[in-house]
Amino acid sequence: MGNKTTVTPGRLIAAPENFITAEQVKAARPARRGFMRGALAAAGGLAAGGALAQSPQTAPFVESPPAIPPWTRRLGPGVATLGYGVPSKFESNVQRRISPGLTPTRETSVSFTPLQNLFGIITPSGLHFERHHSGMPEVDPEQHRLMIHGLVKRPLLLTMDDLMRFPSVSRIHFIECGANSGMEWGNVAVPTVQYTHGMLACSEFTGVLLSTLLEEVGYDKKNGRFILAEGADGSALTRTIPIEFALDDVMVVYGQNGEMLRPENGYPLRLVVPGVQGVSNVKWLRRLEVGDKPWNAREETLHYVDLMPDGIFRQYSGVQEVKSVITSPSGGQKLLDKGFYEITGLAWSGRGKIRRVDVSTDGGRSWRTARLQEPVLTKALTRFRIDWNWDGSPAFLQSRAVDETGHVQPTFAQLRAVRGRNSIYHNNAIFTWQVQPNGEVWNVQLG
Amino acid sequence: MGNKTTVTPGRLIAAPENFITAEQVKAARPARRGFMRGALAAAGGLAAGGALAQSPQTAPFVESPPAIPPWTRRLGPGVATLGYGVPSKFESNVQRRISPGLTPTRETSVSFTPLQNLFGIITPSGLHFERHHSGMPEVDPEQHRLMIHGLVKRPLLLTMDDLMRFPSVSRIHFIECGANSGMEWGNVAVPTVQYTHGMLACSEFTGVLLSTLLEEVGYDKKNGRFILAEGADGSALTRTIPIEFALDDVMVVYGQNGEMLRPENGYPLRLVVPGVQGVSNVKWLRRLEVGDKPWNAREETLHYVDLMPDGIFRQYSGVQEVKSVITSPSGGQKLLDKGFYEITGLAWSGRGKIRRVDVSTDGGRSWRTARLQEPVLTKALTRFRIDWNWDGSPAFLQSRAVDETGHVQPTFAQLRAVRGRNSIYHNNAIFTWQVQPNGEVWNVQLG
Repeated sequence: MGNKTTVTPGRLIAAPENFITAEQVKAARPARRGFMRGALAAAGGLAAGGALAQSPQTAPFVESPPAIPPWTRRLGPGVATLGYGVPSKFESNVQRRISPGLTPTRETSVSFTPLQNLFGIITPSGLHFERHHSGMPEVDPEQHRLMIHGLVKRPLLLTMDDLMRFPSVSRIHFIECGANSGMEWGNVAVPTVQYTHGMLACSEFTGVLLSTLLEEVGYDKKNGRFILAEGADGSALTRTIPIEFALDDVMVVYGQNGEMLRPENGYPLRLVVPGVQGVSNVKWLRRLEVGDKPWNAREETLHYVDLMPDGIFRQYSGVQEVKSVITSPSGGQKLLDKGFYEITGLAWSGRGKIRRVDVSTDGGRSWRTARLQEPVLTKALTRFRIDWNWDGSPAFLQSRAVDETGHVQPTFAQLRAVRGRNSIYHNNAIFTWQVQPNGEVWNVQLG
Repeated sequence: MGNKTTVTPGRLIAAPENFITAEQVKAARPARRGFMRGALAAAGGLAAGGALAQSPQTAPFVESPPAIPPWTRRLGPGVATLGYGVPSKFESNVQRRISPGLTPTRETSVSFTPLQNLFGIITPSGLHFERHHSGMPEVDPEQHRLMIHGLVKRPLLLTMDDLMRFPSVSRIHFIECGANSGMEWGNVAVPTVQYTHGMLACSEFTGVLLSTLLEEVGYDKKNGRFILAEGADGSALTRTIPIEFALDDVMVVYGQNGEMLRPENGYPLRLVVPGVQGVSNVKWLRRLEVGDKPWNAREETLHYVDLMPDGIFRQYSGVQEVKSVITSPSGGQKLLDKGFYEITGLAWSGRGKIRRVDVSTDGGRSWRTARLQEPVLTKALTRFRIDWNWDGSPAFLQSRAVDETGHVQPTFAQLRAVRGRNSIYHNNAIFTWQVQPNGEVWNVQLG
C-alpha cells in the first residue's frame, strides 16, 4: 500500500525505539550506486584461501558483476493473477509419483512424496502421498455427515457445520503408511528416497479431539473399549481404534496446513491417529462406532498384518516405530565435486519425540550426533542436519534415530532376526545410501 | 500396498507390543453390520438434555441413518491423477483477493490472505498475501545469482546450487506488511478480516542464516553496520537491515512450507527478517551489500515512513509490535443461532513469543484468558481459542495480546494519542467485531 502514500512536508527522523536509530540516520549517505563496480573489480584480487573450511567448495569468487537479467528489466504479472497460487514452472519435476507395476490399478494404489526435494518438516499438501482403496471420492461437504453411535448414550449425526463448532485443536503430526519402505524386505533396491520412504508426510492438522466427541455422546466407559472408524469412499474402509488411543490424542480432522483437507487426504473429514500407520487415519470419515471388541475388518485381517518367520500373522501392529532416513544426499542424486555437504534427513517415532539422531558416513563403524530442528514435536517429523566433507572416496551414509522412550532404530539384521523376510509392513531399519567415487548415490543394503 | 499382500496360511495373533493386545483379539466378534439401524432407532428417544453445556447447540440427535451417498457407490479417480494436488472444488471461494481501487494497477498492489477461512498457524503457500512493487518476476533459478559485497574481505557471487550447499535452518515465522490494518487509521470500517488483517502469513522457512554468509565473506566487523538487500524484480526494491538483525536471526530463504518458495513470494530466493515489516523481507533477492550507514533508499524514505502528529515522519520503524485479531467470528460472518461458539484468532509480535491473549465479549469491560496453541514460537503466529456461549444480545469481541517482553497491544485511543490519525503503517491496535442481535458480525471501532 506504500504507493498510496502522499508525502507531505516533513523531516526524516527515527524515533529511538525504532530499529535503526536517529543517530544512524543522521549520518546517512547517498545511495551507493556506482560504487558496485569498483568493489567488484577489487574483489577479483582476493585469494581463495580466505574461504571458511566448512564452506561449499564451489562458491566462486566475484570477478565481474552479473548482467541485469531480463526479469529485472520488465514489469511482471500483478497480484492475484492466481487467487490460489501454484509452484514455479521451474519446479514442475517436483511431483508425487507412482511406482509402475506396483498395483494393477491406480484406484487401489499409492503415490509417493518427493522427499528428496523437500525442506523442514511440513509437507506441502499438494505433495502429500496418497493411498486409496477405491479411488478418491469427491465428497460434497454440505451433504457429508459424521455418525457417532454404538455403546453411547446420545448417538449423533453431525453436519460439517456442527462439527466445526466444537472446541478445536491444531497439532503437527506425521502420517506414514505401514507399508512404507516395504519393498526393502525383499531386497529390492528401490533407487530413490521418493520410492523407499515417500509414503510419509507431516502436516499441521486442525480438528476436534475424538475424546471431546466421545464425551459429548456419552460413551459407555465400562464396555466401550474400541472405536470403529469408517470412510465414505467406495471401499467403506474400516479400522479398529483402541479406546486408550481414542481418549489420548486422536483427532477428527478437517484442517490441514491451515486450510481444509485436500480431496485426496480425506476432504472434508478424516481421522488422525498420531503415531499409528496411515490406514488407521481413516479418510472421508463418516462413521464412528463405540464397541466392546475389535472388529477384525477386511483391512485388519486380509491386509496390514505381518507374516512372521513361524508362519503366523501379527495383527493390529499399528504403531510406527522409531525410524529415520537421509533425504540428501540420496539415491539418484550425484555429488558433482568433493568438499562440504550438509547431510540432512527426517526422523520420527509413533511413540513420541525424537531424542537423538546419529549419522554415519562409513556404514555404521563410527557415528556423529546430528543437529535437530527445533522445536522437536511429539509424533511429528524431525529434521536433522549434520556437516560433512566428502573426500571423494566411497561412503556409506546411514542415520539412526532414538526416541524419547529409548527405542533405537534397528539394523536390518536385527529387524530380520525377529521378523524374517516375508513382511510388507513396518520396516523401520537403518537405511544405507552409498556414495560412489564418481559421486553417484545408490541404495545398498548393509547388514 | 496392502493389495499386493499374498495371504498365506496362518493364524491371526497380536503380539503383546502391538496396539491392540492378543487378549483383546481373542475376544473378537464378527463385524457389526446390521446392528446400526437398531442403534439409531433407539437413539431417537434420547432427550436433548444430555448434551454437554459447552457443546454446539445445533448438534442434532440421530433420528435415522444417513443415506449412502453417491461417492460411496462408485470408484473415484486413482492416485497421482494430479502430480501436484489442489484444493477441493468446493473450496473455490477461498482465495487471495484484491481490494478494488486500492491501487491504480495490480503490479504495485496487494492481495489479501483469507484469514477467516484458515486454521492453525501455517498459511497455505497458495494463499500467502502478495505485495509487489513492479509485478512478479519469473526468475530462472539456473540464471539467478546472489552477490554479496561491500565492506567484506571476500565478495561472492553465488548460484542457487552454491547457496543450497551451505548449512541450513528451518524456522516458522510470520510476515506482516507494515501497512496491514492501515485503512483503519482513517476510520474506514473495512468489512472482513481478509481486508483488515490479511496482509499477514506464517510459514516454515528454510535457508541459510545471513550470519553464516557474512562470516563466509569476512564482513568488516568494525565498520560493517548495515546491510542493503536488493530484489531482482523490476523495482529493484532495496531496504536497509541493521547488522544486529543480520547477525541475529535473518535468513536467506529458498524454502517455504517444505518446498521451494512460490514465485509471488520471491522464488528462488528471498530475505526473511523475522519480526520486521514485510517490505524488509526482500523477495527475488539478488544483492547484499555491507555498508557503514543506512541507505535511505526509495522504499525507506518516500514510503514506509510514519507521519506523526507534529508533521514529521518516523523512519525505519520496522519492528511489527504485538498484535492480535479474532478471525472467527469475524466481519461478514453470521451467527445462525444462540449457543456455543469457539472464538479463535491469531496473535503475534515482532519482539518474540506471545505470552498471553485475553478476549473480551463486552468491548473491553471484562476479559478472559484464551488457550494458546502449543508450541508458542518466537516471531510466529500464535493461534488462540476460547469458549463462548452467545446469548443473542449484542456483543463486542476483542482480543488483546501481550508478548514476552511485556509489550501490551494498545487500544486505538492509546495508539492515536501517540501516532495521531495520519499514519498508514504500524497499526497494532485492539480490534473490535460487533455481533448484532441478528447474528451479523460488523467491524466497529471502539476507543
